[in-house]
Amino acid sequence: MTESIKVGVLGATGAVGQRFVEALADHPWFEITSLAASSRSAGKKYRDAANWRLESQMPEAAADTEVVPVDVNSVDADLVFSALPADLAKTVEADFAKAGCVVASNAGAFRKEPDVPLMIPEVNPEHLGLIDVQRDNRGWDGCIVTNPNCTTIMFTVTLKPLLQFGLETVTIASMQAISGAGYNGIPSMSIIENVVPYIGGEEEKVENEPKKLLGEFDGSQVNPLDIDISASCHRVPVMDGHLEAIWAGMKDDPSPEQVSRAFDNFDPGLSDLPTEPEKVIIVRDEPDRPQPRLDRNAGKGMSVSVGRIRSGIRYIVMGHNTIRGAAGASVLNAELMHKKGYI
Amino acid sequence: MTESIKVGVLGATGAVGQRFVEALADHPWFEITSLAASSRSAGKKYRDAANWRLESQMPEAAADTEVVPVDVNSVDADLVFSALPADLAKTVEADFAKAGCVVASNAGAFRKEPDVPLMIPEVNPEHLGLIDVQRDNRGWDGCIVTNPNCTTIMFTVTLKPLLQFGLETVTIASMQAISGAGYNGIPSMSIIENVVPYIGGEEEKVENEPKKLLGEFDGSQVNPLDIDISASCHRVPVMDGHLEAIWAGMKDDPSPEQVSRAFDNFDPGLSDLPTEPEKVIIVRDEPDRPQPRLDRNAGKGMSVSVGRIRSGIRYIVMGHNTIRGAAGASVLNAELMHKKGYI
Amino acid sequence: MTESIKVGVLGATGAVGQRFVEALADHPWFEITSLAASSRSAGKKYRDAANWRLESQMPEAAADTEVVPVDVNSVDADLVFSALPADLAKTVEADFAKAGCVVASNAGAFRKEPDVPLMIPEVNPEHLGLIDVQRDNRGWDGCIVTNPNCTTIMFTVTLKPLLQFGLETVTIASMQAISGAGYNGIPSMSIIENVVPYIGGEEEKVENEPKKLLGEFDGSQVNPLDIDISASCHRVPVMDGHLEAIWAGMKDDPSPEQVSRAFDNFDPGLSDLPTEPEKVIIVRDEPDRPQPRLDRNAGKGMSVSVGRIRSGIRYIVMGHNTIRGAAGASVLNAELMHKKGYI
Amino acid sequence: MTESIKVGVLGATGAVGQRFVEALADHPWFEITSLAASSRSAGKKYRDAANWRLESQMPEAAADTEVVPVDVNSVDADLVFSALPADLAKTVEADFAKAGCVVASNAGAFRKEPDVPLMIPEVNPEHLGLIDVQRDNRGWDGCIVTNPNCTTIMFTVTLKPLLQFGLETVTIASMQAISGAGYNGIPSMSIIENVVPYIGGEEEKVENEPKKLLGEFDGSQVNPLDIDISASCHRVPVMDGHLEAIWAGMKDDPSPEQVSRAFDNFDPGLSDLPTEPEKVIIVRDEPDRPQPRLDRNAGKGMSVSVGRIRSGIRYIVMGHNTIRGAAGASVLNAELMHKKGYI
Repeated sequence: MTESIKVGVLGATGAVGQRFVEALADHPWFEITSLAASSRSAGKKYRDAANWRLESQMPEAAADTEVVPVDVNSVDADLVFSALPADLAKTVEADFAKAGCVVASNAGAFRKEPDVPLMIPEVNPEHLGLIDVQRDNRGWDGCIVTNPNCTTIMFTVTLKPLLQFGLETVTIASMQAISGAGYNGIPSMSIIENVVPYIGGEEEKVENEPKKLLGEFDGSQVNPLDIDISASCHRVPVMDGHLEAIWAGMKDDPSPEQVSRAFDNFDPGLSDLPTEPEKVIIVRDEPDRPQPRLDRNAGKGMSVSVGRIRSGIRYIVMGHNTIRGAAGASVLNAELMHKKGYI
Repeated sequence: MTESIKVGVLGATGAVGQRFVEALADHPWFEITSLAASSRSAGKKYRDAANWRLESQMPEAAADTEVVPVDVNSVDADLVFSALPADLAKTVEADFAKAGCVVASNAGAFRKEPDVPLMIPEVNPEHLGLIDVQRDNRGWDGCIVTNPNCTTIMFTVTLKPLLQFGLETVTIASMQAISGAGYNGIPSMSIIENVVPYIGGEEEKVENEPKKLLGEFDGSQVNPLDIDISASCHRVPVMDGHLEAIWAGMKDDPSPEQVSRAFDNFDPGLSDLPTEPEKVIIVRDEPDRPQPRLDRNAGKGMSVSVGRIRSGIRYIVMGHNTIRGAAGASVLNAELMHKKGYI
Repeated sequence: MTESIKVGVLGATGAVGQRFVEALADHPWFEITSLAASSRSAGKKYRDAANWRLESQMPEAAADTEVVPVDVNSVDADLVFSALPADLAKTVEADFAKAGCVVASNAGAFRKEPDVPLMIPEVNPEHLGLIDVQRDNRGWDGCIVTNPNCTTIMFTVTLKPLLQFGLETVTIASMQAISGAGYNGIPSMSIIENVVPYIGGEEEKVENEPKKLLGEFDGSQVNPLDIDISASCHRVPVMDGHLEAIWAGMKDDPSPEQVSRAFDNFDPGLSDLPTEPEKVIIVRDEPDRPQPRLDRNAGKGMSVSVGRIRSGIRYIVMGHNTIRGAAGASVLNAELMHKKGYI
Repeated sequence: MTESIKVGVLGATGAVGQRFVEALADHPWFEITSLAASSRSAGKKYRDAANWRLESQMPEAAADTEVVPVDVNSVDADLVFSALPADLAKTVEADFAKAGCVVASNAGAFRKEPDVPLMIPEVNPEHLGLIDVQRDNRGWDGCIVTNPNCTTIMFTVTLKPLLQFGLETVTIASMQAISGAGYNGIPSMSIIENVVPYIGGEEEKVENEPKKLLGEFDGSQVNPLDIDISASCHRVPVMDGHLEAIWAGMKDDPSPEQVSRAFDNFDPGLSDLPTEPEKVIIVRDEPDRPQPRLDRNAGKGMSVSVGRIRSGIRYIVMGHNTIRGAAGASVLNAELMHKKGYI
């Protein structure tokens, strides 16, 4: 463990923040040195500040850590993971990058910036090259790298192996878990025995982020992929796991068997990142899988599961929204940056 | 009440059967004279035979009725409503029609038969003309008229006013309530805190029934409408109310406002059928409606509610699956038949 | 409708406030003239201020009413129903009583005051006599009358007919619905697929309020009944309907049949109050009833249902917490006050 | 692994059977050699016969095992775990015991037999002595040892350390998970957004089994403990984890602190059984714990968690019903038997 890197978690007490703490507990490369949260929590032990709601136990080391405020001077770290709300992220993440820190952000604040990589390591690792552009542009010693919205991640991972068939259009109907809105996000009276067919801002993200993710980096910028995406996003009474029904229109009109094989053979070519699952896309053959409750923990929550690949091409994709879709995504980004020498 | 017609309910103890009993309790034209169910129930009072699970109280008159077996000789009625399973319906409904009875069926057994009307009164009332063809073909004194699958009904009602814009394609992702599978259909261990992305046989029905419903009756047969429909059907932990995300491709490319107006102005032109809702399509303007729990009882469960009409055209439609989508649909069919002189 | 009394609702936009508006929509004696809520809502139409979440439609008259602030000068009414939070209720309800208004309160602020009646009309109608004491003590022209906590109401109604057997001890385990905590009270992440064995302050209320309710009014004060009550309160993922397991220790050791008969024969002797249910205690004989989802609407939500009366004596009681346990309880109190000439 | 013992699982495809397969996957002493199930499953690979519904993956070795019929000649094992239904268990378990097999049974068939140990290793390990009595009585080479009903186990573990205070009475209200009824046991339409205050036969077991468990083995028989237990059992929409509200009446009237200390200090004195949790009783200090979803996996599902210890003495106890309350309980019994030389 000669390479232990000091990391901080910004917004450490929230739902995604807790997932960061869980994911980093026994990390071979990263070691939590700072847990930062709002002034209400700062000064308390993490044990007392965080209303821990995961089925795993709170890691002992984290439990005894004193929470610090979310600012550059209070956080002692070379790498920070950000689970901040978008408005706060806008200024705070820039401060950290300016101060020389690498910021792996789950927030939406910088995702659209042309010189900020929006990353899924299995999809567009070469976009890390944007970091150099970003540093040139902004004069930062550190940098900001972002991961997409949770709903975007699940199906974009599956679009990558479909590019070979001439992908043109995507229609997606999502059935999203409540944990995506944070612990206090969804009142029980709104969602028990119900479906809410609206998630603020979600469809716009789902329709645009994949274009950047699947775009081509030409050394100075990312040229977005020209595809049509149309989304309808719905909240369902599920704790964790976003399920998505996908229609993918492709020029070459592949058969379900070809698509299934493309998914099954998809190898992102990463070299042994600690958080990388054995298989990033797991193809299920049962008629009624994947399901959130049964499949969300596949690959320790980092695999996406697909099933019901039918002519059309239609299929179902499902993944763990606060692991694969949030904390785990940021950690995987940071691992790739470390591998590539950016940390 | 000079026109009281004697009606029987076949399969009266099940989930849809109970909805028939509820719907017919105070009906101005129809009076329950026979409640028929399997041999396990026959001979018992309905009170004891039916495991009543509706929030309304079991109607007193029904409660005291002795359940009879499901056969022509035991049932005393001019009109029967069928909530039988498809396999049983195949022979039993034919028996009743042959014996001179009008059969309003919620079962799937005869829906595809070219000489059996598949009806939504607000969509294709003129298809009743097939009854004459059916009687000619089969030599029956009675007849069979069917209503579509519950999922089909909700969105097909909304497709009717879109025909004027040159409807070409429909993509539908359904989020369906558990009551659609009957009381014992879905084990709680399969659906609590979960989504099951598969409902056996459903997608095939959803993709084909609207073509017949929206087809043209030329006096001797129904010529199906030429549209492409692609469905993905999902079960969610909701008691009642099927919610459907719809993408409708139309040649004239209408604006969301035009579509909204077409829905709002849609008047099926029926004349005061007792079970007809004041408005068959209710347009909701809130960003997060319709929702199953809040909107399923609109129009006493007979209205469908739409919302989120966006460019695309995309929208959400939701309706009560065991009322609008099953028992109420059959009753409305029978009311139309009575109005048109077939009963 | 010669007797139409002008009523206001304080806290009209919240979960219980909406139940008041629903309950008063077609009331034969009371007419809503003011809907009062926080400054955030004041000035808006009720339609826009209230996030209506009941399955019934918002009453048209209320929808068009402009919401006013919660103060004596803004509200035009002879009778106000209070769904205010306890801290605000403490001062505001006193202001209204001082100004000559009758306050029927669902809040906890004044329940323990010795000169404020804590009322369930079916249990202790004679306690209304405390109003004269209250007016003497405080020099008010109006008055405050309260109803108990929702959990208290359900089982206290059933304790009344058990007094004849020498009731000595009560043990109660409650399984309470989420609506009792208000629309935003319980985050979905805390309660879905879970039980929370704690409700702040609830057990203290449940153990003390029945003593006052079942106490004797001697013309100047209420002498509490001497019984031991021990409660354990739990939140379950149910929308409406508090279910309670009760053990009642009685000196005379009655049989389950005697208890069942006492419940069934219980006639509170009220004379036709509009909100009074036909039967205040409904005895169910099925082995698995009452259940919240199936029985909460019995008696339009104003009956309590009991079942599983076993030796011990043990039984189950269940009632609608925001109707029988809150808004309906206050309305019934006001009806009794009107009947007795206090309004 | 010199001590690998050949084990079979009877009823291997059901909900508890799957938990056995999961629990035994990497067991240091036991090795699955036979998976037995009904004739419908026999002959298939376990992978195809079992509808695996646990969040863990099906163990590979089990997946490839061919399921055999449930009879002595088909099962090759020295020890069998039985998850059979009670009626079948009555004959089949006796057959296996007669044939020389040790039967660790989760079924209810033999629990009340005077010469069959009803065991919780942490509570009454000395009752294993009954095996000798049983063998004498019945002339069996093998034997049958049973564990109690799932609801019994949770609170009986906590009663053991209360015996020192002169335990006299226990009142228990249970809130039980659906998995206790098997995969198809509870229809979703009965339990979603509901509580069912009845579980057939459960209260009788809960009121009687602890008397035998806490009784004294005098070398030839178990003399039951003389305590009064009164139970009310309820089903709630929770997947796994039975929560129980307990009132314990004790002669010495201990304080909550004394009770808390007794729980915390409780050391069953077992010596390192593989399935034994580090702490059998975990005392939680938070006001709102234990909760099924958050605490059921404590101690890999083998700990029971208690909280809210209040004067009365009242407290909450919660444990995993299909692990601590079923499969894990049987495995722990077998481990104790092995340690004591019975296997």
